[in-house]
Amino acid sequence: MPDALSPTGSGDLATLMTDIGRRARAASAMLATAGANQRRSALVAAARHLRAQADTILAANAEDLARASDLASNLRDRLALSPQRVEAMAQGLDDIAAQPDPVGEVMEQWTRPNGLHFSKVRVPLGVIGVIYESRPNVTADAGALCIKSGNAAILRGGSESAASSAAILACLRQGLADVGLPEDAVQGLPTTDRAAVGHLLRMAEYVDVIVPRGGKGLIARVQEDSRVPVLAHLDGNCHVYVHQDADLEMAAAVLLNAKLRRTSVCGATESLLIDGAIAARALPRLVPMLLEAGCAVRGDGAVQAVDPRVTAATDADWGTEYLDAVLSAAVVPNLSAAIAWINRHGSHHTDAIITQSQAAADQFLAEVDSAIVLVNASTQFADGGEFGFGAEIGISTGRLHARGPVGARELTSFKYQVRGTGQVRP
Amino acid sequence: MPDALSPTGSGDLATLMTDIGRRARAASAMLATAGANQRRSALVAAARHLRAQADTILAANAEDLARASDLASNLRDRLALSPQRVEAMAQGLDDIAAQPDPVGEVMEQWTRPNGLHFSKVRVPLGVIGVIYESRPNVTADAGALCIKSGNAAILRGGSESAASSAAILACLRQGLADVGLPEDAVQGLPTTDRAAVGHLLRMAEYVDVIVPRGGKGLIARVQEDSRVPVLAHLDGNCHVYVHQDADLEMAAAVLLNAKLRRTSVCGATESLLIDGAIAARALPRLVPMLLEAGCAVRGDGAVQAVDPRVTAATDADWGTEYLDAVLSAAVVPNLSAAIAWINRHGSHHTDAIITQSQAAADQFLAEVDSAIVLVNASTQFADGGEFGFGAEIGISTGRLHARGPVGARELTSFKYQVRGTGQVRP
Repeated sequence: MPDALSPTGSGDLATLMTDIGRRARAASAMLATAGANQRRSALVAAARHLRAQADTILAANAEDLARASDLASNLRDRLALSPQRVEAMAQGLDDIAAQPDPVGEVMEQWTRPNGLHFSKVRVPLGVIGVIYESRPNVTADAGALCIKSGNAAILRGGSESAASSAAILACLRQGLADVGLPEDAVQGLPTTDRAAVGHLLRMAEYVDVIVPRGGKGLIARVQEDSRVPVLAHLDGNCHVYVHQDADLEMAAAVLLNAKLRRTSVCGATESLLIDGAIAARALPRLVPMLLEAGCAVRGDGAVQAVDPRVTAATDADWGTEYLDAVLSAAVVPNLSAAIAWINRHGSHHTDAIITQSQAAADQFLAEVDSAIVLVNASTQFADGGEFGFGAEIGISTGRLHARGPVGARELTSFKYQVRGTGQVRP
Repeated sequence: MPDALSPTGSGDLATLMTDIGRRARAASAMLATAGANQRRSALVAAARHLRAQADTILAANAEDLARASDLASNLRDRLALSPQRVEAMAQGLDDIAAQPDPVGEVMEQWTRPNGLHFSKVRVPLGVIGVIYESRPNVTADAGALCIKSGNAAILRGGSESAASSAAILACLRQGLADVGLPEDAVQGLPTTDRAAVGHLLRMAEYVDVIVPRGGKGLIARVQEDSRVPVLAHLDGNCHVYVHQDADLEMAAAVLLNAKLRRTSVCGATESLLIDGAIAARALPRLVPMLLEAGCAVRGDGAVQAVDPRVTAATDADWGTEYLDAVLSAAVVPNLSAAIAWINRHGSHHTDAIITQSQAAADQFLAEVDSAIVLVNASTQFADGGEFGFGAEIGISTGRLHARGPVGARELTSFKYQVRGTGQVRP
């Protein structure tokens, strides 16, 4: 078990954290210049260790579960591992290993009239701090994405998953060591001391970016306290807007999937907007369908009029991410009103229009100010895997650096390489 | 003169700042969906107003200069305008207008096996806060780059330039109004109240990014206080490393330019490293040359031995950005030592190698962890114009979002537009 996960006396915490930071920075330099094959081999080796040590991991997980006997059932489910879940983690590492390597890609190149040749080359960010809840699989995913992108990782999972995460972390570190890469490219933080996170957020000298995963409270605290740039994943208050030129059967199928395929994901639709011109036909088709599928509907007056089971929406509903089988629904007069509504009440995450009109689709795509805007498709496609990015570390709701799904490529920076023959600046 | 520049009672400051933020947000939405031609026309119109109102601007500048009678001469020079400098500002706006428009560019597109078509499309960042010193021309440059990239700007120049900046700002706003764009796309902050900056740095709801330009103290304060992401321009402790396979005459020409063309720019070389294998030939060629050109040299033992005018460098010298006719110089045993030295003592800004060896050049370009790495060219090419980016708002020393020169394109984000035919997620 790595030393970094062993709690120490709190007086030593600053020293411990500085040591972790220094080791991460040194490891990141080695990882950044390691070849793609070496990093790939480390991931494949780590996957092998996960499979070989499945029993150890499951025993550690049993310890965690025994200690966390008062955890709510949904959190307990996130914490619990099974042989299948361990195999899924290992398969995840193999999948990340098989993805194209982002490091060293020449993003652009050009030559200036003075003969200087410029290349913009993708490089790792450096050291990434990941703060997450008690989900052991995130240890594997996040660690692997950082290795893939040539970054060193400092991982801080929830305290309930301490033993499971440490066992998984050990596999990642063994994989690195197997191929001659520094184990310190992936380190854990002491999970028993909350002050460790405070240190992490202020180690700008050693940490280049913080990726918080978790509830709004955690992310808000991280954003408030961090002196390191944060790639935050905030809420997804996603909309489906049924335009007057929608194919109603398509709208029904997309809406049902967007709302109910999984209600706990950030790409789940939370609010339905219906164009006034189609409301008389659309509401009786869509609203009872949702209710009968087990989804509560909170509507404005027009929506309530369709079915007595619809309850009255309050103003707060329009901005609420339910993450549950609940939907808010309103009738809007036209496309422009729908766009204005979404830009006002939405969270700039993922929003969809259902329409057969090319012009309406184009206007919606251009004017809805969200990371992901879709035409005639489910908002549940808001996912790095569905984009073809392979695994993702989250979906960024910020506008700087990364917006939308954050995969290995989004965990990179770049440098400019300039080749000359003795040029001086006039 | 715009209302936003008129100071108000400090009790009203929070209200005033919120109002500025709201107006900027509203204007940014209009600017983001304005066409490229409309934004281009606004810049051309603003350039026309600058020329037509040159007398007003010069009179305002005379006021500023009269009030700032105790300003140091180099700061006074930055503050002072002349008919030529006003024309240069106007020409700068015309040049930015003529650049390619970054907004709406399809950066990538692909189709997934399920038929979903993805486009990654460049969009503005939103609202940009620019904090700078008493340099009136930055008002024109920064405002124009924000308009070009479809962003609303909140500009906060130094208090000594209040009248000049307000007169220039008025021209930008008139240019916007001439073409039917909202004047509030470019607003000023009350320059007499320092607390206004504090508010700006915490208006994450209304401001998407802060660009500080100025001394280290200003930037450090902004980074410490800001709850809005910061694109910071920190120091450039740039190196020239003369490799054993260097063409010595090329090294001499490049070094002279890199150090002395302009000593006050961030791309000026501050430190010279000489390969031990070439030191006996290189030091006598390079060191007296620098001394005779008026550059003080602070060297290690080997460099001091070459010429009695060389003074002893202290450890602090290796990390110092002089911004003056002073150079630190040391002999290093080999390429790897030079790379390690630069990564340790440098500021990850701009560094150059002089060599005829392709292998040495490639290793230097790959392993020196700086925003800009050059082979056989002057570090003074660290400039957006020299990169072909047109005007720049600064050179980012951060690794997130933008690294190196920040032009109009670096002031953008992106969104994913997804077109389907009724796809739902399995």
